[in-house]
Amino acid sequence: MIKVLVIGAGAIGAFYGSLLAKAGAEVSVVCRSDYDHVKQHGFIIDSHPLDRRHFTPTQVLKNAADFEETADYVLLCTKVIPTLDRIGLIRPAVTQNTAIVFIQNGVEIEQEMLDAFPNNEVISGLAFIGCNRVSPGEILHLAYGRLALGNLPNGVSAKTAQLCELFNQSGIESKATEDIVTGRWQKCVWNAPFNPLSVLSGGLPTLDILQNQELFVRSIMQEVCDIAAAAGHPLPDDIISINIEHTYAMPPYKTSMLLDYENGLPMETEAILGNALRAAQRLGIAAPHLESVYALMKLRELKLSYLE
Amino acid sequence: MIKVLVIGAGAIGAFYGSLLAKAGAEVSVVCRSDYDHVKQHGFIIDSHPLDRRHFTPTQVLKNAADFEETADYVLLCTKVIPTLDRIGLIRPAVTQNTAIVFIQNGVEIEQEMLDAFPNNEVISGLAFIGCNRVSPGEILHLAYGRLALGNLPNGVSAKTAQLCELFNQSGIESKATEDIVTGRWQKCVWNAPFNPLSVLSGGLPTLDILQNQELFVRSIMQEVCDIAAAAGHPLPDDIISINIEHTYAMPPYKTSMLLDYENGLPMETEAILGNALRAAQRLGIAAPHLESVYALMKLRELKLSYLE
Repeated sequence: MIKVLVIGAGAIGAFYGSLLAKAGAEVSVVCRSDYDHVKQHGFIIDSHPLDRRHFTPTQVLKNAADFEETADYVLLCTKVIPTLDRIGLIRPAVTQNTAIVFIQNGVEIEQEMLDAFPNNEVISGLAFIGCNRVSPGEILHLAYGRLALGNLPNGVSAKTAQLCELFNQSGIESKATEDIVTGRWQKCVWNAPFNPLSVLSGGLPTLDILQNQELFVRSIMQEVCDIAAAAGHPLPDDIISINIEHTYAMPPYKTSMLLDYENGLPMETEAILGNALRAAQRLGIAAPHLESVYALMKLRELKLSYLE
Repeated sequence: MIKVLVIGAGAIGAFYGSLLAKAGAEVSVVCRSDYDHVKQHGFIIDSHPLDRRHFTPTQVLKNAADFEETADYVLLCTKVIPTLDRIGLIRPAVTQNTAIVFIQNGVEIEQEMLDAFPNNEVISGLAFIGCNRVSPGEILHLAYGRLALGNLPNGVSAKTAQLCELFNQSGIESKATEDIVTGRWQKCVWNAPFNPLSVLSGGLPTLDILQNQELFVRSIMQEVCDIAAAAGHPLPDDIISINIEHTYAMPPYKTSMLLDYENGLPMETEAILGNALRAAQRLGIAAPHLESVYALMKLRELKLSYLE
């Protein structure tokens, strides 16, 4: 039986972990803040697109080091924030045959994984999903859910294909992609404007942002495209207009960064904006709009740190 | 006796009006929100650099149209915001011999005055001051106070010199300048970064902004210099470093835009940022950092409008 250890069982980890369990895998979780509750009651996954179901992990652990079995997959699903050591979190559970999967946001978050685990298969994942933790152990899956998975630095392995199949069996579209790094930049085209603008505006949903500052949104998107191209991952010519049209068609939407902000949680400023900008600087690409938005997010975070 | 009508007797109007009265002018005020209180009690001007004194205007009026005498000077001291018609506010009090003085923030706010009153002397004023209205009729003058006055489109008239003298007699340095328009751009070098950044950061004082995002602040300042130069008002080469040094030396300071924001009052986004950007566009100058900050302020204002 396929053994999976989910590390970081918040909304994303619990949701995708539950899908693998539903497909027949043996799924254990490492879970920090809700450990006591989840240990006793497991998870409730209330999925509007799928169903409402209980998910009882095989083991509920406080640390990856407590996992005494051999994981076929570790599935890292934390946020990517500077105070969280992604490598350290998973290392204790990584054995020779463990494939390391991360379903996380941001760009240029691959290399540290490849450097830390040169002999393991590393699979990068992107989730297009709207889901929240509404209370300890209770996850609300509102919409979407599509996954993109691909090996690093590129390609699709048998293990990646197997993982995709498990997700697909559970009712969520999962696609193996030969070039997941490009996919990551592609997702950044949307994230780089809408996430910080939703926070810096004081909480506007996506539609308001777009209706009032479409040109500004497009400028940031264009800079992300320029950086991606310089990084060797050119994006499709129509990606900006597709993103704009798609966002106009979406119901007004609160971004993940805005939800974090409103809940007093750390935001993925560095993973999304900081990493994109560092790539721009390394590659000599001008990105003044992105630079502005990043600088303002850093000031906003500084202000928040004073309020703690 | 010199007759002055102050229009917009908030902190700035009441303070500078009181100085002219102290110097012997006959000063009346048009005062909107605090009319009843001021009509009955006049103003208390509590100036830390000068003294605490009562200021009883000769007349307290609701509208400029109620002023039945002939003003030697009308002194317009409102904020510059799109919902306030500067021309309409003063027109009823402008006679053939009235000099129009405005002590206001922003760039490119001159032309509409020159167009509206082609046959009057128009004097542009800049105040470098920290003062607030603390309660109806009570003005607290914390620090600074220096004025720069100059005729439009340039030069210094006898009336301007006379006005400077009155202010100087009352203990506030007032300087007549041959090129007040350049002075306005010069002030914008400081205002364009610090005002919006204090708001968008969620309320940081100037020192935090500078210590954490000096490069970003410098980028915005440089864009203002570029626009000013293209508009025919080149600023001194060392203006940015002087502004930076000066701000490091200041005590942590809340900008006027932040105070307005915290008090739920309209902000001078258009007068400072919008006008600078429109000049950039007209002159073909790239100003992407300024553009970003302006776009974010517009989103922030949109969000605020929903909360009203």
